[in-house]
Amino acid sequence: MGVFDTDGTDASGHEQVVFCQDRQTGLKAIIGIYSTALGPALGGTRFYPYASEAAALADVLKLSRGMAYKNALAGLDLGGGKAVIWGDPARAKSEGLLRAYGRFVESLAGRYYTACDVGTYVPDMDVIARETRYVTGRSVEHGGAGDSSVLTAWGVFQGMRAAAEHAWGAPTLAGRTVGIAGLGKVGKYLAGHLVEDGATVVATDVNEAALAWARNTHPQIRLVADTHELITSDIDVYAPCALGGALDDDTVPILRAKVVAGGANNQLAHPGIEKSLAERGILYTPDYVVNAGGVIQVADEIEGFNFERAKLRATGIFETTSRILRLADDEGVSPAVAADRLAEQRMAEVGRLRSIYLG
Amino acid sequence: MGVFDTDGTDASGHEQVVFCQDRQTGLKAIIGIYSTALGPALGGTRFYPYASEAAALADVLKLSRGMAYKNALAGLDLGGGKAVIWGDPARAKSEGLLRAYGRFVESLAGRYYTACDVGTYVPDMDVIARETRYVTGRSVEHGGAGDSSVLTAWGVFQGMRAAAEHAWGAPTLAGRTVGIAGLGKVGKYLAGHLVEDGATVVATDVNEAALAWARNTHPQIRLVADTHELITSDIDVYAPCALGGALDDDTVPILRAKVVAGGANNQLAHPGIEKSLAERGILYTPDYVVNAGGVIQVADEIEGFNFERAKLRATGIFETTSRILRLADDEGVSPAVAADRLAEQRMAEVGRLRSIYLG
Repeated sequence: MGVFDTDGTDASGHEQVVFCQDRQTGLKAIIGIYSTALGPALGGTRFYPYASEAAALADVLKLSRGMAYKNALAGLDLGGGKAVIWGDPARAKSEGLLRAYGRFVESLAGRYYTACDVGTYVPDMDVIARETRYVTGRSVEHGGAGDSSVLTAWGVFQGMRAAAEHAWGAPTLAGRTVGIAGLGKVGKYLAGHLVEDGATVVATDVNEAALAWARNTHPQIRLVADTHELITSDIDVYAPCALGGALDDDTVPILRAKVVAGGANNQLAHPGIEKSLAERGILYTPDYVVNAGGVIQVADEIEGFNFERAKLRATGIFETTSRILRLADDEGVSPAVAADRLAEQRMAEVGRLRSIYLG
Repeated sequence: MGVFDTDGTDASGHEQVVFCQDRQTGLKAIIGIYSTALGPALGGTRFYPYASEAAALADVLKLSRGMAYKNALAGLDLGGGKAVIWGDPARAKSEGLLRAYGRFVESLAGRYYTACDVGTYVPDMDVIARETRYVTGRSVEHGGAGDSSVLTAWGVFQGMRAAAEHAWGAPTLAGRTVGIAGLGKVGKYLAGHLVEDGATVVATDVNEAALAWARNTHPQIRLVADTHELITSDIDVYAPCALGGALDDDTVPILRAKVVAGGANNQLAHPGIEKSLAERGILYTPDYVVNAGGVIQVADEIEGFNFERAKLRATGIFETTSRILRLADDEGVSPAVAADRLAEQRMAEVGRLRSIYLG
């Protein structure tokens, strides 16, 4: 596969894709910048032992494009980018390699800001930051935003409220039953918001410690054995907060919820599954819209992190989700398609403004 | 093919390879940075209708690596880079496309300086320069170095003098017969230097205007029908100054010259042909060493062009060629191999110096 969009399908219409190599430290990285129409491209660095260079390239092209849409609908003045470091982080990660990578991030002079992703952590960002200014996801002691699942969960809750208003007329989960699959960090915070809002929460997790947390902190949460039991329970809302691919050809036909809103990435197992949801009358809030609180939180570091400002922005996910659901109704398309349209519209409209000269 | 050096053969051990795309103007460019050990990477931009993205990538990887070696032996504080714009310049070139390309050059913040190459010309560099500071090969009115074949020819003459000293004991072509294939700009200037030095010049060209120039300007030049007649003439030195691949399995066995030194790029048609030259006792001065006067000339623009300073540097090709020929003798390798070793040595030695902290 190549980088350029040669067949006009827009499959890889990326603005810039940067291969970076340092033979001494073994660094092999690819930085993908899908669009800078809204500002510098922000997205995390995934450190992963891909099977091939082509697999690494395919992943960074897909992920950076996704970040462009996510950042656009998060209302950020940030374009979409992502990076991959090709290698096994357990064996290859070193100060030298991370700093060599940092120098390449710096070489793009601010067109790309990095952050944590699979295989990279806050301490890694602090190392990378010794070579470049263009890093978020740093430790709190270095101006970092801290645990970004706090605002991820807050944003999911806002998106869910918007979906509730769209489905039932009032922006609240009070009196509704919400099923949370996955009581990791996002799921836990989300459960707290839902309990506080007056919802009945049903949850499942494979991790005994997470279940113990639920029993101790929120004894009113009803715990079920597994995801199958959860989605076939009498729930109004399904919140996938674990691995990707939660909505597939097996789960959608048996799902009893009327609304789906969760923190997991890539909830749709394959293209077309959003149609199956629509056919069953299930309101799906696009994952990348409702889980954008995390990127909103780390992006705030660029201005000097302020939790209340970031929370205000994440609260905006309520209004964004409402707009998407209305647009989907108006145009007779799925919310996923409506979200993409809104994102593209914002990139085009706001990006164009730079043609008004200001020096 | 990929970008990364995964099999350890060093076939593509490039530091950075940057794919750049602008869908509005149709720009598809690849900037290859082989090494910045000696400084920012300098190399021209080739605008060419490659058959595929893979062909464009292969070309930029090969050319940018070549520039690293060329710039290293030219004694420049410049690393090696090159860029390709994928498209037909006759149809695709526009102000918008060139300026979009210029913005991507600027985005590398000075790690890459561009210049003219096949398909791009001085006026194009002036357009690109409206978006980026990192351009050489500009028009004289904008501080450009002017026709770089002036110092290319001067450098070839210096390399030829060094080879003459190595072969016959005196650094002069006086009394020798030199055959020039190609009376383009470089060939013409070279002919002038040789006539002035007291050499007998034999030449050929397919262009009638070039032959007319020779008859009018240097009536003592003996013109022959074609390259075959030239290389089978009784010449001491063969100076290929036209297309690449002048030294191949057909020409080397019949070549009567004892020295080869010319301005053409890629004179060796394939790897191994340098051994055939050595077996026939022919002293080959590596093309990228002796034709580096051109890059020395345009690189001087970075400091603010000064012809005398650039000429002094190009005169250094005499000493560099001498060193290479001595090293080849000492180590029992071909001059091509000796040149590569010297280039790699300079990149390693000088590049390492940055470890001495200066702020």
